[in-house]
Amino acid sequence: MSTPVHDYLEDLHTRVAQDDSGVVADYIPELALADRSSFGIALATVDGALYEAGDTRLPFTIQSISKPLTFAMALEAHGEMVRERVGVEPTGEAFNAIDLEPLNPLVNAGAILTRSLLGANPEPSLLQGYGAFAGRELSIDDRVRESESHTADRNRAIAHLLRGAGRIDGDPDEIVECYIAQCSVLVDCRDLAVIAATLAAGGRNPITGRRAASSDTVRDVLSVMATAGMYDAAGDWLYDVGLPAKSGVAGGVIAVLPGRLGIGVFSPPLDDRGNSVRGVGVCQELSQSLDLHMFKHAHRGPSPVRRTFTLAEMTSKRQREPAVAARIARDGARARAFELQGDLGFAEAERVTRAVLDAPAELVVLDLRRVRDVHEAAVALLAGLGDRVSALSAAPDELAHAMNVQPFEELDRALEFFEDRLTGDTVAPALLSVRDHAVLREVPAADLASLEGLLEHRFFAAGDYVMRAGEAVTELLLITRGVVSETVGLAGGGIRRVATVTAGMTIGELALLGGGQRIGDARADTEVECYALPADALSGLRELDANLRAVLLRNLLGIVAARSVRMREDLATLAD
Amino acid sequence: MSTPVHDYLEDLHTRVAQDDSGVVADYIPELALADRSSFGIALATVDGALYEAGDTRLPFTIQSISKPLTFAMALEAHGEMVRERVGVEPTGEAFNAIDLEPLNPLVNAGAILTRSLLGANPEPSLLQGYGAFAGRELSIDDRVRESESHTADRNRAIAHLLRGAGRIDGDPDEIVECYIAQCSVLVDCRDLAVIAATLAAGGRNPITGRRAASSDTVRDVLSVMATAGMYDAAGDWLYDVGLPAKSGVAGGVIAVLPGRLGIGVFSPPLDDRGNSVRGVGVCQELSQSLDLHMFKHAHRGPSPVRRTFTLAEMTSKRQREPAVAARIARDGARARAFELQGDLGFAEAERVTRAVLDAPAELVVLDLRRVRDVHEAAVALLAGLGDRVSALSAAPDELAHAMNVQPFEELDRALEFFEDRLTGDTVAPALLSVRDHAVLREVPAADLASLEGLLEHRFFAAGDYVMRAGEAVTELLLITRGVVSETVGLAGGGIRRVATVTAGMTIGELALLGGGQRIGDARADTEVECYALPADALSGLRELDANLRAVLLRNLLGIVAARSVRMREDLATLAD
Repeated sequence: MSTPVHDYLEDLHTRVAQDDSGVVADYIPELALADRSSFGIALATVDGALYEAGDTRLPFTIQSISKPLTFAMALEAHGEMVRERVGVEPTGEAFNAIDLEPLNPLVNAGAILTRSLLGANPEPSLLQGYGAFAGRELSIDDRVRESESHTADRNRAIAHLLRGAGRIDGDPDEIVECYIAQCSVLVDCRDLAVIAATLAAGGRNPITGRRAASSDTVRDVLSVMATAGMYDAAGDWLYDVGLPAKSGVAGGVIAVLPGRLGIGVFSPPLDDRGNSVRGVGVCQELSQSLDLHMFKHAHRGPSPVRRTFTLAEMTSKRQREPAVAARIARDGARARAFELQGDLGFAEAERVTRAVLDAPAELVVLDLRRVRDVHEAAVALLAGLGDRVSALSAAPDELAHAMNVQPFEELDRALEFFEDRLTGDTVAPALLSVRDHAVLREVPAADLASLEGLLEHRFFAAGDYVMRAGEAVTELLLITRGVVSETVGLAGGGIRRVATVTAGMTIGELALLGGGQRIGDARADTEVECYALPADALSGLRELDANLRAVLLRNLLGIVAARSVRMREDLATLAD
Repeated sequence: MSTPVHDYLEDLHTRVAQDDSGVVADYIPELALADRSSFGIALATVDGALYEAGDTRLPFTIQSISKPLTFAMALEAHGEMVRERVGVEPTGEAFNAIDLEPLNPLVNAGAILTRSLLGANPEPSLLQGYGAFAGRELSIDDRVRESESHTADRNRAIAHLLRGAGRIDGDPDEIVECYIAQCSVLVDCRDLAVIAATLAAGGRNPITGRRAASSDTVRDVLSVMATAGMYDAAGDWLYDVGLPAKSGVAGGVIAVLPGRLGIGVFSPPLDDRGNSVRGVGVCQELSQSLDLHMFKHAHRGPSPVRRTFTLAEMTSKRQREPAVAARIARDGARARAFELQGDLGFAEAERVTRAVLDAPAELVVLDLRRVRDVHEAAVALLAGLGDRVSALSAAPDELAHAMNVQPFEELDRALEFFEDRLTGDTVAPALLSVRDHAVLREVPAADLASLEGLLEHRFFAAGDYVMRAGEAVTELLLITRGVVSETVGLAGGGIRRVATVTAGMTIGELALLGGGQRIGDARADTEVECYALPADALSGLRELDANLRAVLLRNLLGIVAARSVRMREDLATLAD
């Protein structure tokens, strides 16, 4: 499908294809057979989108792009010891330099040393490790492996020097064979993009969703790729392109924009440093024309505080009696909600602490429904807000524990809790005489008796359905005891509370008056008593004194209008 | 004020203060007078928060931290030529190495060369340039300057070598004096944090809000700081700390987390590489315990798509007749809005294009009200969506131009435009007989005549106030011609539309029925005719046939209930 990103890649492909310079590697005979005109570009994002242009499904050998993957596997297996054994200094020398100082895992000597840390002959686990990055099962090209094995004298020399220097333990020839096998793993350009995107995503493969390496390992791998990935002068690549990258002698290149995306390029002709000419060209273009240089890409993301509001601006779905609602409106500014979004690291948590401290309120709730991950540093910082925050909603357990505040599953419930705190309103259901119900206000005493003949008394146990979604509504329920919650089903599954009503309030008025069906269920939270008023009493179809009908309708209008005014305020708050 | 971040810095200060190793620089006699126990840490964020612990207001000389600032000024003045003249390779050598290859702007030889590009003796402009980074007026410490001048033999030798190699044009001794002057600029620890935060913010000083350098310049400066800032082996600092940084021999250190924050540290004792022992310790702690390593900090931010919904889920504030509203509910899924947030670069624009293409709709609007900046690469990418997007709201002109779609000031207006497109509803005000008004539906013909005696005919010209905010509402207006818009004032200034109503609809029903005052204004968009029904006719205070009153109230209830149902749906959409 043509998309703007795809169109961009096609255009980039056309432009960079014009550079036909470079020489296909021939020191390994099998590599010399590559078609110099093959050229593919693939881009994968940290959330799993994949774009391709050109020859992205042609297999070729991974060669030195295996080095950061083996380094990652060694770090996973041995941790910081790897850095002490191998080093991380860019050498500024050719990839096959024979010097042992300085060393890093991305030049041959360091890569052979790194490979030795994984032991001899474990190809299956190596293929598994690489496959976790690529997101599919990989295999080895035996012809290339044999061809490389016949021309591996220099690497054998390096391995022997390494053992001579006491830096590897095993048999040098065996280790070189293992190293050649890792270089002979077959990949395509799309695989490279997925590998790069896995590094961009902190080690979690965005296609499979499975973790290929820890974020600490990826931090270390990217650090070395940033200075030593392109056999280049260490400062030049970071300055010109600013993307951690790695090239292979078969013509592959990966480049990583951390947190965003990964690039894979395949084009066999190499420049005199041994990097794919077009691979370098694509990286330069992306960095310059798309501002993907990691020090240019430093623009600010959306605030971690998605929205903040007080109870004076928006309340819970719990409907309140007018006097209680008035108290909430008056005192609501003393309670404030902060809806957070995105991952929270130290810098985001700092903004959250500042927002909380800058907007003083007695009661504060942080809502983490839209937060995916709370890093350790953020937990530590937010813990310091423990005495300024009274509640959390949809928060991970360790955060609630560290902050030592009351956790709620939903923000709505935390708001209700705050309202109760502010007003002292009790959940305990009062028993109301139906004569005192708001719908019957100002009904003359003489009319009450005839009206009571129409009202049907109902009782529900806690958990009973009072009305069900889809039912035609033919009566209005006047609640005289207990608590009823109305919910709607969500498109993505689950339900959401839209209202909780108590004695003195009604159920069914909107569907009744709009002439429709129930949208959601109404269920009794507690034991509930209520009186059902038939719809036709209000419409005039059933004989009822016209004056009485007008009083009932006016009362209902007052109730519905008051609720509408509040909804309109909520809408204004939410739209802001 | 104690805040969690401040508490963290105080704690960090206490921990790092325990390391009393290192030697105060004494090769410049004046520096040897520094109190080795002075120690300050300051942290500034890209949005202008500042935290301090310890001795953050003690003045000291900037020394080599001047180098990236002079480099920035040279880049601003001369662009890419600077890189060709100076180079960007880390040297791996001592800061005062006399070798001329490789060179970079952060070792003495490269810094003297860089300084020479700004011409001789322009201290005032230099102080101005540095001051833009620090956010205040700076001055030179003449005692240090003189002291350094007496011990500058090595730098003079370097300058002469540079001229001998044909790399500088001016008088070597003069240039060295200028270089010593730049090293003698007085700063405090807080200044360093602001300088670092200015670099973190892409060149815009977060305290003054003024730009100190372009984002391209900052990209180049950070690139060199990443590999060559700490006189360290180039790979080690990036690997261990992963923050572009620079130290000065007086004990200052700056470190930058791009896009997030800047750190300033002051502590005179130096390690054997010439970096402040505690300055390095603080950077290591921040990187490790707070995960501020730039390759660790790659977690995902909030999505650039803040919310998306169709017209079936939420409509404009234009109230529609029931038949039109039903058509919108039926066909509304064909029109979709995307509310975007944060700055948009290439990677964010990619996510936006994907979201748009994955949710096919005939009519698409992108709302940029919460977007601060749209980078060039994002404009180019979004332009490719031109045939899939029909409208933009709150978008910069260049984006609307590149996409060639209709711009709207507010999303609400774009939604209304889509509704008109979907339904063919016209804005042209129909003239309605008051007898056909929805409030008078089913009123018996015999009653209409007596009712008309109560109704007062009103006329408004376009722009007239129909009702004003704060007014007590004593009548219900039945619109028979024209268009009226209701607005509310926003806390931050400006107004927002809450409803637009037309012939057959009402004004004032909520305030009337809730018994209150107008919250916002209602103004005529076109010529308007309407009929005013006194409130006391509905309440029963004014003599009116009870049957007739009941019919009117029932009609009004139907209208208000239908609107409430829609508001409840909008609330569910917005809360999602």
